[in-house]
Amino acid sequence: MALIVQKFGGTSVGTVERIEQVAEKVKKFRDGGDDIVVVVSAMSGETNRLIDLAKQISDQPVPRELDVMVSTGEQVTIALLAMALIKRGVPAVSYTGNQVRILTDSAHTKARILQIDAQRIQRDIKAGRVVVVAGFQGVDEKGNITTLGRGGSDTTGVALAAALKADECQIYTDVDGVYTTDPRVVAKAQRLDKITFEEMLEMASLGSKVLQIRAVEFAGKYSVPLRVLHSFQEGPGTLITLDEEESMEQPIISGIAFNRDEAKLTIRGVPDTPGVAFKILGPISAANVEVDMIVQNVAHDNTTDFTFTVHRNDYNNALQVLQSIANEMGAREVIGDTDIAKVSIVGVGMRSHAGVASRMFEALAKENINIQMISTSEIKVSVVIEEKYLELAVRALHTAFELDAPAAGNTAE
Amino acid sequence: MALIVQKFGGTSVGTVERIEQVAEKVKKFRDGGDDIVVVVSAMSGETNRLIDLAKQISDQPVPRELDVMVSTGEQVTIALLAMALIKRGVPAVSYTGNQVRILTDSAHTKARILQIDAQRIQRDIKAGRVVVVAGFQGVDEKGNITTLGRGGSDTTGVALAAALKADECQIYTDVDGVYTTDPRVVAKAQRLDKITFEEMLEMASLGSKVLQIRAVEFAGKYSVPLRVLHSFQEGPGTLITLDEEESMEQPIISGIAFNRDEAKLTIRGVPDTPGVAFKILGPISAANVEVDMIVQNVAHDNTTDFTFTVHRNDYNNALQVLQSIANEMGAREVIGDTDIAKVSIVGVGMRSHAGVASRMFEALAKENINIQMISTSEIKVSVVIEEKYLELAVRALHTAFELDAPAAGNTAE
Repeated sequence: MALIVQKFGGTSVGTVERIEQVAEKVKKFRDGGDDIVVVVSAMSGETNRLIDLAKQISDQPVPRELDVMVSTGEQVTIALLAMALIKRGVPAVSYTGNQVRILTDSAHTKARILQIDAQRIQRDIKAGRVVVVAGFQGVDEKGNITTLGRGGSDTTGVALAAALKADECQIYTDVDGVYTTDPRVVAKAQRLDKITFEEMLEMASLGSKVLQIRAVEFAGKYSVPLRVLHSFQEGPGTLITLDEEESMEQPIISGIAFNRDEAKLTIRGVPDTPGVAFKILGPISAANVEVDMIVQNVAHDNTTDFTFTVHRNDYNNALQVLQSIANEMGAREVIGDTDIAKVSIVGVGMRSHAGVASRMFEALAKENINIQMISTSEIKVSVVIEEKYLELAVRALHTAFELDAPAAGNTAE
Repeated sequence: MALIVQKFGGTSVGTVERIEQVAEKVKKFRDGGDDIVVVVSAMSGETNRLIDLAKQISDQPVPRELDVMVSTGEQVTIALLAMALIKRGVPAVSYTGNQVRILTDSAHTKARILQIDAQRIQRDIKAGRVVVVAGFQGVDEKGNITTLGRGGSDTTGVALAAALKADECQIYTDVDGVYTTDPRVVAKAQRLDKITFEEMLEMASLGSKVLQIRAVEFAGKYSVPLRVLHSFQEGPGTLITLDEEESMEQPIISGIAFNRDEAKLTIRGVPDTPGVAFKILGPISAANVEVDMIVQNVAHDNTTDFTFTVHRNDYNNALQVLQSIANEMGAREVIGDTDIAKVSIVGVGMRSHAGVASRMFEALAKENINIQMISTSEIKVSVVIEEKYLELAVRALHTAFELDAPAAGNTAE
């Protein structure tokens, strides 16, 4: 008799048939004795259809009105799922973000949840009803409809689970769990039974786009056990928890993440004086370019080199800004490279194990892969390498850290 | 400087282009110094699309959930229109029924408005904003989303105009006003400048489907001046008012209404005893058949004949019920006819003019049209005739009551 919040994304509710399948799944859990709150997204394609309609009126639709429109997507899904449940004899009721009351700030199209009123839902649960809640949306203090931004339904699910003190928040998606790395790159990648919130955050931000980062942060902050599962396949999925102890018995490294969306920029021979980093990155940030890795090595001859990475889409923009900075500072030159990739090893085991980074560098050296940049955090070591070596590097690291599945081949079906 | 509520139906907002046209029209009124509240329906076709989607889940979707779904139609339109206004430099804000707070009873899919909170809208008007409100929808005391049933947007418009004490409620539609009769039947039909609420009610219930009956009733009850106008053509339209005096100078009869959706049933030779009407109509009503005209003539030989009309769709059902009643009562026989039409003359002038009915009968007699049933009210005389004479009868009456346009041809463009 657990209270479970289940979240189904746009693909899982993309057609009437799939909504019926979701209803079957919910019914099965409920028949097993659990109390269920379901969070759903808009049917896949619907949000884009609505945004396209708005763009026919205006290139930059007023955010308040865009939220009024786009929030109708989930509103349709909650009604359809509630109908499908009731048809199966499962008492159910649907609520919009406003009806629950999911209170958010007023940052339209990217609002943040401030508070959730759990009373109404708790009354329904007590009365034996499955509650179906619209993800991705809320309402501000003045009663304006808000949306949480793309992928916000995950956040709704976690926030509801926290407010209801649910036993678990299950995120149903199109993969059967979190993997040690991308199975398309490494055939021997394995599904993880467990991963910590911190590891998940490092994996997610590096391109393993299984869960929305905000949802994982939220789950970590409120200690909501989070499970990633496949919508239409059976299986235990991957549990994301606070629980570090058990994971200590697991490999030191939980996974290999990578990212080929970045580009590298270097400004050479800048005067080694205080404030130089700000002089360089201030204008970059003012140009709305987000910076990922930053490396500055020790100076020689009173000048230093300063390197950072940005998203490839921002490369040209950043290059221009950097060139005018270089002129002003009297720097020697600006160079850049878009053919790079970032590879990271992630694992809380690193905290208690020495020599993890050197084991990584050794594995790369064995394959003759040159490391261009290094950056480390408590549970992650990232390197930038030439893009063409990406797959080779990921596979070498996957083997070196003993992540390969025991039998040959992919354990994912 | 008037406060005007303008209502645009589904066809008037059926495409993005039309929504832009509506925005232009609203802007023009506002530039002229008026305060405007706009009520809109769902884009044409959208409500049916949503209902079809629901029917894929269930033949009889739960009404509460159907309302959650269907109400998204207007929610999309209000946002689009608000965007189109803001793009034109007109400050605007959209509200759903729930946001306004249009309080209704809980009769999902056919709710009735109980109360409208005017404060929020009044604040916006004071701040110089055009307020765009979703028609057709509201919210019950418990916060459940409700809809008013088909055509309910007219009612929303009138109810808002009443709550805001607006100077006029303008209903924009695909005709340029209310006509003396259907211009497709009588080429010389004329647009009426004015008509009273009572006349409009009689015209509307008889098939001149320009306005929803509930909206007219509401407007009459709260003395809201109502004007029917064409969405995309210029013109004064038809004003619907309480004001009878002026219309006295107009023709005695305002219009000729007609209806070919009815069928006639007669039960012959029933005992002429008290309670016979109830014995007959009780079971008919219990079978969910609505009865329109009822005629019972004086008895002879202690038996009487009892005739009534129903919608043609209900004819077979009513006939069955009537036959079993006839057996129980020992009536002589049951006969029926579906090839009938009802023609009515409508006008408040009747109250102060004698001989209106006989003038009607004279005109029909001249054309050799036999009258099968007669029913009268204070401002209406209706007759049932053979269906094939319908057009002939309507034209004859239109001429007899001097309603023909002075020049030959139709004054409607």
